[in-house]
Amino acid sequence: MSITVVGSVAYDSIETPAGRRERCLGGAATYFSLAASFFTDVRVIAVVGEDFGPEQESVFQARNIDTQGIERAPGKSFFWEGSYLENLNEAKTHNTELNVFAAFEPKIPVSYRDSEFLFLANIDPVLQRRVRDAMPGVKLVAGDTMNYWIKDHRPALLEVLKGLDILLINDTEARMLAGNNNLVRAARAVMAMGPQSLVIKHGEYGASLFQSATGNGAASKTFKAPALPLDEVVDPTGAGDSFAGGFFGYLASQPELTPGAFRRAMFYGSTMGSFAVERFGTERLQQLSRNEIEERFNAFRELTHLD
Amino acid sequence: MSITVVGSVAYDSIETPAGRRERCLGGAATYFSLAASFFTDVRVIAVVGEDFGPEQESVFQARNIDTQGIERAPGKSFFWEGSYLENLNEAKTHNTELNVFAAFEPKIPVSYRDSEFLFLANIDPVLQRRVRDAMPGVKLVAGDTMNYWIKDHRPALLEVLKGLDILLINDTEARMLAGNNNLVRAARAVMAMGPQSLVIKHGEYGASLFQSATGNGAASKTFKAPALPLDEVVDPTGAGDSFAGGFFGYLASQPELTPGAFRRAMFYGSTMGSFAVERFGTERLQQLSRNEIEERFNAFRELTHLD
Repeated sequence: MSITVVGSVAYDSIETPAGRRERCLGGAATYFSLAASFFTDVRVIAVVGEDFGPEQESVFQARNIDTQGIERAPGKSFFWEGSYLENLNEAKTHNTELNVFAAFEPKIPVSYRDSEFLFLANIDPVLQRRVRDAMPGVKLVAGDTMNYWIKDHRPALLEVLKGLDILLINDTEARMLAGNNNLVRAARAVMAMGPQSLVIKHGEYGASLFQSATGNGAASKTFKAPALPLDEVVDPTGAGDSFAGGFFGYLASQPELTPGAFRRAMFYGSTMGSFAVERFGTERLQQLSRNEIEERFNAFRELTHLD
Repeated sequence: MSITVVGSVAYDSIETPAGRRERCLGGAATYFSLAASFFTDVRVIAVVGEDFGPEQESVFQARNIDTQGIERAPGKSFFWEGSYLENLNEAKTHNTELNVFAAFEPKIPVSYRDSEFLFLANIDPVLQRRVRDAMPGVKLVAGDTMNYWIKDHRPALLEVLKGLDILLINDTEARMLAGNNNLVRAARAVMAMGPQSLVIKHGEYGASLFQSATGNGAASKTFKAPALPLDEVVDPTGAGDSFAGGFFGYLASQPELTPGAFRRAMFYGSTMGSFAVERFGTERLQQLSRNEIEERFNAFRELTHLD
């Protein structure tokens, strides 16, 4: 089944201990789409500027990603510049230029309206809400957010959370959102805000899935996916969005959303995240095969399985 | 097969968000022995003072732990006072009194000499080395250390590492010992110092086992054990030593040290660590049954297994 994703398509200038790249194709919706495209059909809603040309377009086309919902606006695309020189787990932002993104009004092509899966990547919760409301027929809605929205746009974010089935955030965001340092209690508090499933990403330590059995916010089931021990992380940018793409893409490819499907989705999330960081920007995701994904999925299984 | 362990038997005064306890029975050798005693015979080498009486002795006897090697010396037992008020992952030490431990000269009872497994808990590497050299017939030697020895007693520690089959340390210690922030590279560097197996404990994120396939220090195999998501940690003291006791105790109980035995040992380590933190001091380990251990082991399997 197809996924519609709304989020940023952008240019990133990135510096890591492995080097520096200027104006890579980036943005949460880009990483998400590429990762999810190995599992199911993906349709993107975003806005780009006049600097987005056929070369960038072809990155999406090569993976059969529907770009009808990528609006071209006068001006420049969203631009981010950051480095990971001291800490590979956290980017230091040097510059953010919203450009055409500042006036982004998501428009949903008619052909997207039969999507059964919707992913609200990290953007203004007001826009997330608007897209969610415009697609009442979807079967499963997942979303992401970040510290900025949690701290300064809490009421709007709480409205979004009410309409989410699955929230994907990291440790720091979960603790901040819940106001509780204990991750299990934080998970319970966040699930009481709406989502029945919560994925908390722990960076190099993998990710946890919390699921409420009854829908009343009790964190009654937990599952853990490891991260691959990597001796070189070239560029952490997009790891979380690639995790989300693998996770949600795999779920959308399944005939039924069984507990087993969620468990395998967590491992596919870790798998896609581990590929994303191996090269700068989206390079690795662009040159990936489904066989390589299956091989790595099996390596992840080996990493934690007793038998 | 039996394990001989050398390390501290001590009193701890502990403050955590769950409360405060004065002069609990503690020490690395105590936690290690109690945890390992559920899997195999354990013999302790330590020194205690005149404040160690029949009540403390009975804690070991109740678990059939051999205390012949616990020397009684004039004076007081080792005493530690610490708190975990701001951070459950790291103790703040308020007071350390070495007392009889300052002049500790490990003496190995003749009846211990046929032990095939030796655990060198966190003590002065000079003493670890002495005990290791005095038991040349052992089949497998594991050990622990801490930042203090890594920073200020490196040459003595490096001598100990040459004689270890397995080293168990935490993230910070591994990075400090190797001088490398990337855990995979740090693991490779530490294994080049001697141990063919390295367990790195990640606190609430579980633990990783690195094993060199060829013995030349290449980190060619990795395994990950999760930690149980706990909504209340009453007292983190002894979690790492209880992990080591479960891990090494299980290994000592196995007819062969297969890769599968190491994997299960990692899960038993996590299992024993998760029990230790549920109550103050050694309370939970004293009141544990083998059935409870098997139940939790299965819960850990559920936590990461796909099928």
